[in-house]
Amino acid sequence: MSNPDYQKRKAFFDQLLTIYGRKPVLEALQDPAMKIYKLHLADSNKEDGIVRDIKKIALQRNIDVEMHDRKALSRISKNGKQDQGVAADLQLTAYQPSSAISKDLLTSSKRRYIALDRITNPQNMGMIIRSVAASGIDGLILPRRGGAPLSALVIKASAGTLFRAPLFYCEDLGQELARMQTQGAQLCGLSSHATHSVFDTQQDSSSQIYILGNETDGVSKEIEGLCDRMLKIPMHNGVESLNVAVTAALIAFLSV
Amino acid sequence: MSNPDYQKRKAFFDQLLTIYGRKPVLEALQDPAMKIYKLHLADSNKEDGIVRDIKKIALQRNIDVEMHDRKALSRISKNGKQDQGVAADLQLTAYQPSSAISKDLLTSSKRRYIALDRITNPQNMGMIIRSVAASGIDGLILPRRGGAPLSALVIKASAGTLFRAPLFYCEDLGQELARMQTQGAQLCGLSSHATHSVFDTQQDSSSQIYILGNETDGVSKEIEGLCDRMLKIPMHNGVESLNVAVTAALIAFLSV
Repeated sequence: MSNPDYQKRKAFFDQLLTIYGRKPVLEALQDPAMKIYKLHLADSNKEDGIVRDIKKIALQRNIDVEMHDRKALSRISKNGKQDQGVAADLQLTAYQPSSAISKDLLTSSKRRYIALDRITNPQNMGMIIRSVAASGIDGLILPRRGGAPLSALVIKASAGTLFRAPLFYCEDLGQELARMQTQGAQLCGLSSHATHSVFDTQQDSSSQIYILGNETDGVSKEIEGLCDRMLKIPMHNGVESLNVAVTAALIAFLSV
Repeated sequence: MSNPDYQKRKAFFDQLLTIYGRKPVLEALQDPAMKIYKLHLADSNKEDGIVRDIKKIALQRNIDVEMHDRKALSRISKNGKQDQGVAADLQLTAYQPSSAISKDLLTSSKRRYIALDRITNPQNMGMIIRSVAASGIDGLILPRRGGAPLSALVIKASAGTLFRAPLFYCEDLGQELARMQTQGAQLCGLSSHATHSVFDTQQDSSSQIYILGNETDGVSKEIEGLCDRMLKIPMHNGVESLNVAVTAALIAFLSV
C-alpha cells in the first residue's frame, strides 16, 4: 500500500534534529534563521532566568511548547543526564536523503560532493560542515550511523552552519556510493598512501565524490574497494597526514 | 661590548622549548626525530613504570638528566600543578628569529609566509603549524607574546609537526611586518569583510605575508593599518567566517 501522506510526513520528520541543554536551545531560539518545530520542557524545571527566557522567545516566535515529565523528556533528548530539562526539535531544511542526488543531477553537469566514512570526532564533523557550507560545493553525504551524531557539540563546532549546509543522509554509505557510481559519479577515496594528487584531477568532467575516512584508520577497505581512484594531498617536511577537517576544506575549496 | 659567544648561546637557548608531563615527555623521547637537550626530573618522583621508562630511554639516547627538588622543577616547567615531576627541553631546529627572513630572501624570489596575530586557541595553533609544515610554504611567523604559547597542547594538536615546521619568532609582530614590508614583502591581512578574494592574487610576483587575526576580533587595527591589502576567502550559503585553521590551510596550499 503506497501512502503519499506517510512519505511526506516521514520526509518531514527525517529533517528534524533534536538538540538539548539550556544554552544550546536558547541560542537556537535566538537565531531567527533557525526553524524550530517544537520546544520540549520538563515540568520539573524551576522557572529561573534561562528557562523563563527560553519560554518567552518560544512564545514570541509562535513555537509549540510541550510539557513532559522528567522521564518522557529524557526519552526525547536521549540524554537525560545532560538535557537540563530542555530540548528542541530543529528543522534542517537543507537536510535531505541522498537519493535526491539522482542520475540526472550527476550526469547533467559536473557535481562535487564529499562523503564521510566514520568521522567520529564532533569537532572535526562540525568544522567539515562549516567548510562545506562556505565552499559552495554540492553537498556532504553522511551515513546515519557509524559517525559522530549531529549533536549540540557538532552544531557548536559548525558555528551554526549546520542549518545552512547541503547535507545528504543515507543508511548505508557503501550502497549509496555504488549506486551513484553506476549513475555516472566517480568515487575518489582520500589516502595519504595514494600515489596521485587530488590537485591533478581538475580536467575531469564527470561528477566527483570525494570520500574521507576515519581519523585513525582512514577509508574502510570495503569502500576503498569501490573507489575509481585513491588520491592524496601532497605533503612536505615529512608530514604524514593532515587533519581530516583541513583535508575536507582543501577539497571543497580547491579541486574544482 | 659585542660578544659572539653570547649571541650563539642565546640563539641556541631561543630554540629550546620546555615541555612537561609524563606522557608528553615519554612521547618526545620515543620519537627519534626529536632533538632533546635535557631531561629534568623531580627527586620526589617514585620510580614507577613510566618514570623508569623515561629514564631508560634518556640513557639509551645519551640525553643529560638533571635531578631537581620539587620547587626547582616547577620553576623549569612553569606549571608545577601539571608537570608530574617531569620536564624536557626540546630543541626546535627549524625555529628561528624572524630576522632570518632577510631582504635578500624576500626579493630574490617569491616567498610566502603566514603570520599569526593573537591566535589564542592551542587547538587552532597546532592545526595551523601542521598545515604550514605539510604545505611547504616558506614559514609561519609567530610573535612570542599575545598568542597561544607553544605548549604540550599545541604539540599534540600539531600531531608532532611542531618539530618540522619552519617557524619564525619575533618580539613585536607589527615592527617585524613593517620591516619586511620596506624590504619588499607585501602584507595581506585576512578579513571576512574584505572585498577582494585571496584566490585573485596569484599573478603577483612579490613575496607575500598573509596575516591571520584573533579568533574573535580578527586582525588588529594596528596591523590592518600596515597592510597593503585586505583579502577574504569567498563564501557561500550566507556563512560569515571560516575556522582560522581552515583559512590558514587554504592559504598555505592554494594561493601559490
